[in-house]
Amino acid sequence: MAKVNDTGNDDIFTSSDSVRSAAPLKHVQYATFDEPLSLELGGRLERLRIAYETYGELNDAKDNAILICHALSGDSHVAAHDADDDPGWWDIAVGPGKSIDTNKYFVICPNILGGCRGTTGPNCLNPSTGRPYGPDFPRITIGDMVEAQRRLIDYLGIERLHSVIGGSMGGMLTLEWAIRYPDRVRSAVAIATSPRLTSQGLAFDIIGRNAITTSPDFNNGWYYDEERGEVDGIFLPATPVRGLAIARMIGHITYLSRESMRRKFGTDRYQPRDVDSEFEKDTSVASYLAHQGDKFVERFDANSYIVITRAMDSFDIGEGGDLIKSLEPVQCRFLVISFTSDWLFPADQSRSIVNALVATNKSVSYCNVSSPCGHDAFLLPDQIDIYGGLIAGFLAHNNDEITEADLEPESDAQGKLDDPDTSIFHGKRIDYNFLEDLMVSQSPSPSPSVLDLGCGDGRMLLRLKRRGWRRLLGVEIDQNRVLMCVKRGIDCIHADLNEGLYWLGDDQFDFVLLSRTLQAVYDVNRVIDEMLRVGKRCIVSFPNFAYKPLREMLAKQGRAPASAGLLRYKWYNTPNIRFLSIADFEDYCREKGAIIHRLVALNTETHSEVKENPNLNADLAIFVISR
Amino acid sequence: MAKVNDTGNDDIFTSSDSVRSAAPLKHVQYATFDEPLSLELGGRLERLRIAYETYGELNDAKDNAILICHALSGDSHVAAHDADDDPGWWDIAVGPGKSIDTNKYFVICPNILGGCRGTTGPNCLNPSTGRPYGPDFPRITIGDMVEAQRRLIDYLGIERLHSVIGGSMGGMLTLEWAIRYPDRVRSAVAIATSPRLTSQGLAFDIIGRNAITTSPDFNNGWYYDEERGEVDGIFLPATPVRGLAIARMIGHITYLSRESMRRKFGTDRYQPRDVDSEFEKDTSVASYLAHQGDKFVERFDANSYIVITRAMDSFDIGEGGDLIKSLEPVQCRFLVISFTSDWLFPADQSRSIVNALVATNKSVSYCNVSSPCGHDAFLLPDQIDIYGGLIAGFLAHNNDEITEADLEPESDAQGKLDDPDTSIFHGKRIDYNFLEDLMVSQSPSPSPSVLDLGCGDGRMLLRLKRRGWRRLLGVEIDQNRVLMCVKRGIDCIHADLNEGLYWLGDDQFDFVLLSRTLQAVYDVNRVIDEMLRVGKRCIVSFPNFAYKPLREMLAKQGRAPASAGLLRYKWYNTPNIRFLSIADFEDYCREKGAIIHRLVALNTETHSEVKENPNLNADLAIFVISR
Repeated sequence: MAKVNDTGNDDIFTSSDSVRSAAPLKHVQYATFDEPLSLELGGRLERLRIAYETYGELNDAKDNAILICHALSGDSHVAAHDADDDPGWWDIAVGPGKSIDTNKYFVICPNILGGCRGTTGPNCLNPSTGRPYGPDFPRITIGDMVEAQRRLIDYLGIERLHSVIGGSMGGMLTLEWAIRYPDRVRSAVAIATSPRLTSQGLAFDIIGRNAITTSPDFNNGWYYDEERGEVDGIFLPATPVRGLAIARMIGHITYLSRESMRRKFGTDRYQPRDVDSEFEKDTSVASYLAHQGDKFVERFDANSYIVITRAMDSFDIGEGGDLIKSLEPVQCRFLVISFTSDWLFPADQSRSIVNALVATNKSVSYCNVSSPCGHDAFLLPDQIDIYGGLIAGFLAHNNDEITEADLEPESDAQGKLDDPDTSIFHGKRIDYNFLEDLMVSQSPSPSPSVLDLGCGDGRMLLRLKRRGWRRLLGVEIDQNRVLMCVKRGIDCIHADLNEGLYWLGDDQFDFVLLSRTLQAVYDVNRVIDEMLRVGKRCIVSFPNFAYKPLREMLAKQGRAPASAGLLRYKWYNTPNIRFLSIADFEDYCREKGAIIHRLVALNTETHSEVKENPNLNADLAIFVISR
Repeated sequence: MAKVNDTGNDDIFTSSDSVRSAAPLKHVQYATFDEPLSLELGGRLERLRIAYETYGELNDAKDNAILICHALSGDSHVAAHDADDDPGWWDIAVGPGKSIDTNKYFVICPNILGGCRGTTGPNCLNPSTGRPYGPDFPRITIGDMVEAQRRLIDYLGIERLHSVIGGSMGGMLTLEWAIRYPDRVRSAVAIATSPRLTSQGLAFDIIGRNAITTSPDFNNGWYYDEERGEVDGIFLPATPVRGLAIARMIGHITYLSRESMRRKFGTDRYQPRDVDSEFEKDTSVASYLAHQGDKFVERFDANSYIVITRAMDSFDIGEGGDLIKSLEPVQCRFLVISFTSDWLFPADQSRSIVNALVATNKSVSYCNVSSPCGHDAFLLPDQIDIYGGLIAGFLAHNNDEITEADLEPESDAQGKLDDPDTSIFHGKRIDYNFLEDLMVSQSPSPSPSVLDLGCGDGRMLLRLKRRGWRRLLGVEIDQNRVLMCVKRGIDCIHADLNEGLYWLGDDQFDFVLLSRTLQAVYDVNRVIDEMLRVGKRCIVSFPNFAYKPLREMLAKQGRAPASAGLLRYKWYNTPNIRFLSIADFEDYCREKGAIIHRLVALNTETHSEVKENPNLNADLAIFVISR
């Protein structure tokens, strides 16, 4: 049985947390504020100290600062400062040339209020008693944590943050920043977070606290070694609080997914690691939990755990209409990221934030990153290409400029893109020219709003952005294409059209595009109904199945139509599952009482518009319709 | 704040467990065995007492006995015996006229070995010390529990059980029964169970035990009031073991789903119930957990919890090939039921049991019941129509007889069935006659094996069963149709063809049917490849898209083909997403090197076979193909 060393240097012990230790932070700085901090739930803290670390240089304009908000058990040490420094908790994302590039940005990461790594918290001296706060530390909120951070930002002389970025509970702080100080945040990245915990997540926190408070060594919160006194302003426990280990074990399950636990422990269930623990350790899972529980007790304060989880549990910016109202003050751009296997902060909660932002026409992009890693995914390297790419691309577009790089065609890692070798301003996609002309000619204003359903890599919207149109939003089902959009500075929501557009308001957009996507949609009726509801004008393009060569193929050869052009697939592998003609679509519009304003019929083989008998001679149709 | 009474009479307190109490069981019987019970992991129990309850009458042939195996925290009181009796834990399923009909069956429910409700367990007298067993109770296995139950069955004079039924851990006992005593079990119903716990489930159990063993009032397991002594052979604790409440709280989260917790606690999060507890109680979730934890400690023994969960955790009949080997001895019919939102015993684990049984041609049906209720679903009334119907239908077919009721057409609750008003032996589905004739004429044996992919309500397979063919298996995606099959005594697996047939062996069936299903399959190539691998002969029928009226529709009218017959849908709402002709399919077979043995072309409008130019004149094609 391999003995596990202190660094957890064993495959199964690798976790988002495996690098963390109780070691002193070498590059920590302190800011102390003597003005009392009034707390949201009443009471106040007489003095406030914030422990923080910084990376990179603040520029002269002081507009390149990024605030990173850590999660429940994090601290100011987001990344290593140099080769001699201890690893940080987000080294994969923060550093020179990384997603959050410290060559470009001045990164600030403070330990949160109520924490136990240097910022004022239960393990600090209570000036009114001369003892540690311990259980007397007042109840605080996420708002209080942000208030404390705001003082630090003032202190650093920063008027407006380039961005606030946070995952998990850090995402809640990010949301709070954007709501509380809209004029001080230019952009926000909320990762694996929620407007309020799920009832399930809340339940896990409650059980963790119950385990701590009923732990006899907790001693009602008075477990500090007061004789030894404070070191760097921090009191340490005289005895470890065992219930904190139980709470941490519960936490660890919620950070992993069922699938990632299967991968981690499935094959060696009966080969536990040799850990020195009083907890159960006769399976690999048990030894992992014992190890993680014991390690955590060494480095974390039980009262902090209670104070912070209570703050997290009481964060609640509402659901539905309430959430829209909560987010109303937001002025900054938003990037929201979730992970498919995250069940602690499930994707639908991120979507609810996105939906609420979209409802009032805020600028937002969203991606639900495919990952088996659970909530931990945002701290692991496995999907860093996607989520790190999203963050980097998003941070690079804090103004409306279009760069040369945005105009470059992207090669699709998945090889799924149409015409990957074609510049987006190449004439090959002639339907784009017609789509653009149609919108320009029918536009009710100089800068109409446009929703592009199935927006692909965002090239159509980028054309419109070049025209100076500003309220542009794409919807795309493929995460790699969402990434391409964000890299180009195009707002894009990662969503499946078959779920409908319930999240958009009536007449919310001047134009809604559905470009060569209809034929791949299962629930056609729903999508069209929703388009007509959401858009003042809807533009639908699709391959015309009654195009002459296709008719002939069925009529003369008795074979399902296929062609070298748009319909280049075979019957058994085509992504197209709906077959319709121009005449069919006209019938359909008539049946549902939709108004047809224009039909542009194209022949993409000859690159020309078809005027005569389009249902026979055109292979692509563009309809402009409305309710 | 409403005060909660002892019965948990509040909406949020309703759970699968809400009726359970520590009240004495009025109808319990005891069987005592003086012969020592040798245990799988070593050691033995000198004496064995089993507490059990029975319902209904054992018939003269003694072949109507059903053994019900309870879950972790259950007991012998599966149902109320009369109006004056306390509620049982499965009253919704067991009783006169219910799914497990005590008018027909003699139901036996024993408390499991290691339990704390009358059967020998840690709270019983250890004859070798004169004290309760307490922590000295030996480690036991699911096999030991079954061994103890087998003694009871012997004692009751029952040679062969009509069925063994169990959910959750009870399902593990059910599997063990079928493996250990294949000749004593005619059928088995395994509900919401697994061949071994997931690593995630294991982790929750470990944390629960850690909470118990580090609880100071646990006192290393010696917490009984020995002075008070035993009552009915049971010692009670002198002090409640608080850690057991923590374990139970964790358990409760795993029994619910995220969705069911949202429904239960989402709207009244900040309206806790007034419970008398030392645990956190300032949210509705917290008060629920405190209540459930406290109640459990009153009625359950902490040492039992450890002994039983350890037995459950060590149950492991393998995965993949090992699981097939473990299940090799099984002779009985199987019904396996899972629930979509069950994440403690997830559906894929039930599927792995099913797959392993199918791999060696055991008789098995499977349904993954759609439910938001999580693991608890099998104890709740919400989906009783489906899972109760499955159990009742399955129990009614323990022999190969075909009853009149089987031949009746079923009305489909969802209204999705083709021809619901048509008797299954009506001539209207003429393709069935041809399919049957084709198989009879090409059969390699008098009783060939047949797999029907997309089997619907099982009417085709029932025709073959009437012929005396016995190895018949259906695959169906709709749970209501799976239910119809099971009610008719047809083995059916609830599965999506698009996932492939990886779970079936090469050449496992003489015939594989894909009857009028191909056109609704997305991944056509995969399904056909898999059919050809699994079946010696494959019979594929589909609507011919090159049928003359359809060609004309496109050629002359320029509209996507639709007809009053087989293709009665519109382009935007048809379930048919693949369009092919007889010629297309011939090309396709040629391309992939499949051999076409026969083509039967039909015109279903004229009810006749088409000999001349089938690609033009037939609306339905039946191909017999092979690799």
